[in-house]
Amino acid sequence: MGALHKGHSALIRRARRLAGSKGSVVVSIFVNPTQFGPREDLSKYPRPFSQDRKICHREGVDLLFHPTPSEMYAADASVVVNESILSAGLCGASRPGHFAGVCTVVTMLFQIVRPTIAVFGEKDWQQLAVIRRMVRDLKMPVKIIAHPTVREADGLALSSRNHYLTPETRALASRIHAALIATVMEAEAGEISMAGLRRGLLKDLAAIPGAVVDYAAIVDAETLEPLKKFGRAVKARALVAVKLGGVRLIDNVTLSGVSK
Amino acid sequence: MGALHKGHSALIRRARRLAGSKGSVVVSIFVNPTQFGPREDLSKYPRPFSQDRKICHREGVDLLFHPTPSEMYAADASVVVNESILSAGLCGASRPGHFAGVCTVVTMLFQIVRPTIAVFGEKDWQQLAVIRRMVRDLKMPVKIIAHPTVREADGLALSSRNHYLTPETRALASRIHAALIATVMEAEAGEISMAGLRRGLLKDLAAIPGAVVDYAAIVDAETLEPLKKFGRAVKARALVAVKLGGVRLIDNVTLSGVSK
Repeated sequence: MGALHKGHSALIRRARRLAGSKGSVVVSIFVNPTQFGPREDLSKYPRPFSQDRKICHREGVDLLFHPTPSEMYAADASVVVNESILSAGLCGASRPGHFAGVCTVVTMLFQIVRPTIAVFGEKDWQQLAVIRRMVRDLKMPVKIIAHPTVREADGLALSSRNHYLTPETRALASRIHAALIATVMEAEAGEISMAGLRRGLLKDLAAIPGAVVDYAAIVDAETLEPLKKFGRAVKARALVAVKLGGVRLIDNVTLSGVSK
Repeated sequence: MGALHKGHSALIRRARRLAGSKGSVVVSIFVNPTQFGPREDLSKYPRPFSQDRKICHREGVDLLFHPTPSEMYAADASVVVNESILSAGLCGASRPGHFAGVCTVVTMLFQIVRPTIAVFGEKDWQQLAVIRRMVRDLKMPVKIIAHPTVREADGLALSSRNHYLTPETRALASRIHAALIATVMEAEAGEISMAGLRRGLLKDLAAIPGAVVDYAAIVDAETLEPLKKFGRAVKARALVAVKLGGVRLIDNVTLSGVSK
């Protein structure tokens, strides 16, 4: 989607390492209209293209794919790729059509670029899970690599939408990650009740002045199904979406490895 | 879908010529469960695989791809490719979910086989139009080639479902194509009212003893939108679906080139 930050640079560097000297690294920059809802920030989404291009050049990108919306979508386009289970909850519940837009454009990009490997950030964990599922179910010949979330010094996950924050909401935003870390610590201290962990997480988020919690969930990392308890083989993930001063921020952390 | 007949052989020979001596011809044989409705003929659909294999061998096929349903679909599969405009009418109206099943399995086959060219029969005209639209909208790197319908001597379009016909319904079935040809001749004789042409077509079909007409339509060959009149550049196609003794038969002919 462009508006590249250090999180994107980390993805590009990961791709560069994976491609080696023989492979090519392709970056797509496309603010995809079909994944925005009618009352979302499509028109004001940042598009600093010349800066993005510099970053790509610096990171050794071989090809920058930057199509226009009309190059991607015919006026009478009528085909959609839809994932119906993992997309239903979390961000999908408050952003209807979002993941269909994501699946469709990622399919198109895969058909155009035909990558052997594609790197996605863990910050958009649900998107990552949905894309893994799509690649599995449609037998796409591409390996999906997940790259860890890059954070500011105070823990805030990097996001192009952080630019929308005021100095006041920016200062408060770090408390989202702090709440997730507190949940990890509670789990490590022996709390195995998901309801208990989730209560603590919600309480910490609700204590952020002006925060509106969209969701806070502890789910199976792959299926995104709600978990009741840790089990030996359970890979749990805590995910949150919070609005701060009208800016919707998401973050997530792993709770795996804390099961007793 | 297998149960190969001379129509399929013609598709394979077309592919063989297109591939030349350097290219490979791949045939998929897969009775795709997701394109059958709950009350359709999935379980009784013919599966004469050893005979199909012989035909493929004789026609110089390089690879025969014959997966099982569980190799194609995970138990928790949740991703569908859906075309919503061209799929809505005609066969789509009486077979809900059919074209989503077709689009999904064809996408999967394209991802697995990665063909540069794919040959489809004109007999399933709506399917052909839907797949062309899917390839266009999802930017799939494959060229779709349409091959003319192969017919019995009396005009009946070859179909694996013709095996279901009794001697009596088989004799009547040729009147479907005869009705379409009569429509072509009426158009060539100067009838430019689509309503008039369609009335004649419906009358001829209704005159077949025991026939239940599912639809008879004259549409734009590409968009499948109903036409009112011929125009200079209009490519019209007449399409019908008729049940004879419970066997659903489809056929279509071009009306292009008859405009005045």
